[in-house]
Amino acid sequence: MMRAGLVQHAMGPDADDNRAASLAGIAQAAAAGAELVILPELHASEYFCKYQDPALFDLAEPLDGPSRQALADAARQHGVVVVGSIFEQRAPGLAHNTALVLERDGTLAGIYRKMHIPDDPGYNEKFYFTPGDLGFEPIDTSIGRLGVLVCWDQWYPEAARLMALAGAEILIYPTAIGLDPDDHPDEQHRQLDAWRTIQRGHAIANGLPVAGCNRVGFEPDRSGAGRDAEFWGHSLIIGPQGEILDEAGSEAEVVVADLDLARSETVRRIWPFLRDRRIDAYADLLRRYRGR
Amino acid sequence: MMRAGLVQHAMGPDADDNRAASLAGIAQAAAAGAELVILPELHASEYFCKYQDPALFDLAEPLDGPSRQALADAARQHGVVVVGSIFEQRAPGLAHNTALVLERDGTLAGIYRKMHIPDDPGYNEKFYFTPGDLGFEPIDTSIGRLGVLVCWDQWYPEAARLMALAGAEILIYPTAIGLDPDDHPDEQHRQLDAWRTIQRGHAIANGLPVAGCNRVGFEPDRSGAGRDAEFWGHSLIIGPQGEILDEAGSEAEVVVADLDLARSETVRRIWPFLRDRRIDAYADLLRRYRGR
Repeated sequence: MMRAGLVQHAMGPDADDNRAASLAGIAQAAAAGAELVILPELHASEYFCKYQDPALFDLAEPLDGPSRQALADAARQHGVVVVGSIFEQRAPGLAHNTALVLERDGTLAGIYRKMHIPDDPGYNEKFYFTPGDLGFEPIDTSIGRLGVLVCWDQWYPEAARLMALAGAEILIYPTAIGLDPDDHPDEQHRQLDAWRTIQRGHAIANGLPVAGCNRVGFEPDRSGAGRDAEFWGHSLIIGPQGEILDEAGSEAEVVVADLDLARSETVRRIWPFLRDRRIDAYADLLRRYRGR
Repeated sequence: MMRAGLVQHAMGPDADDNRAASLAGIAQAAAAGAELVILPELHASEYFCKYQDPALFDLAEPLDGPSRQALADAARQHGVVVVGSIFEQRAPGLAHNTALVLERDGTLAGIYRKMHIPDDPGYNEKFYFTPGDLGFEPIDTSIGRLGVLVCWDQWYPEAARLMALAGAEILIYPTAIGLDPDDHPDEQHRQLDAWRTIQRGHAIANGLPVAGCNRVGFEPDRSGAGRDAEFWGHSLIIGPQGEILDEAGSEAEVVVADLDLARSETVRRIWPFLRDRRIDAYADLLRRYRGR
């Protein structure tokens, strides 16, 4: 059994405050017995992609910057594996949306650079983030092989499958997703349920547990040119048949659940989907489109 | 708008009775205004794959056999497109699990031979069915381009994606799936919900409506060597955000729902997943496994 904790919290304009909230959540999850603690996407700042502003690249930090240092200290202090997320400055004018995995001793177990980058009204990520170039490679830790992906990746069955085929034992999604306050409540409900459902689908298709950690809170547009955003929370932990083990509401909360990683094999024996993949007939998955 | 109907019914040992139930369901769906009518998998017989018996190949019929003739007559009589399913004898000792699509005028619009073949206790399909060799090609009809897949295919995001990339406007799954009466009710519930959820996931990932038509009823093992099966019904029609438009219970029933095929584009504009696929990084989807 492995106990996982999700630190769902809100972010404001002050980076120190945000970091303090993340660290307090890690401590709380560790006190509840979690061995793996997952933070939301880009937890050191408000979600700055609401609009395009070159000045906001000042928020980026290198791989060995203050966020990594704080996460490493917390991992070592509490003896837990931590999955964090940073706006990574790789070089001037070259940045990524990067997940960091810190080992229990504070060393860096590995990184994942977000491969699928969204770009929608209020989510201008293609302006800020170069798509990842490290592929879909799980990260080995003392508690298992972690299939770490980020947010928009969670809409892609391809990403989940590639992690499963590489031996990931759990799929993990730091996330920043919310609703448009101007949308009809029915549409807001459909979007939240779609987000929950596609993650459950990845669990089912791959016989793996899934953990998604989202931020919460209303973040006003501070530019006058962007959009307000209401992040919906609902961080959740899903078992390998798609069953929801625990799910947060839409307030700050630490969710903890026990995962029986051995159950993945039991499930895959009764539903041996990996056995029957028609790899001889999948070549067109590598095409943009099969039609005109 | 396009109205779709699902004919969920039970099958017994008499082929004529089964065919009559299918035809009555087509008539009922057509009377309710359906333009597209979908039948369950292998609707001319009990689910014979509960055990292995060479004599049961007598149930197979050629592509131009009595089932196709009956479906074509019904399609022409009611002026509807019909998706049926047969145990296809292609040559002696070479059989497929094949979906047929009949045009409104009774002509054959196309066929799909089930690509992913299960084989589990009580579902000995690899004994009976050669895996399909026609690939994942949608079938054009007067009411749209149909992404017809069959049962076990529905656990594979790859199959759904390939149909979407080929321009399918709806995903369709004739199905025969049930529960093991000996399983704990919690397990039965997880299995049914996983089946429902993964189909919703395909709708979400591809921005397409999905229709799944299952059989119902308790079918006893007649060999003494197989397993009883209880087919769970719950045929359902899903919109392009994964929302359930209508879902049957576990009794015989005709489900009808209106699909706005144009809504797929609306959904894909707000969630443009096809835009951002990392086809440069998907090559390993063509591998059996990426690990050892």
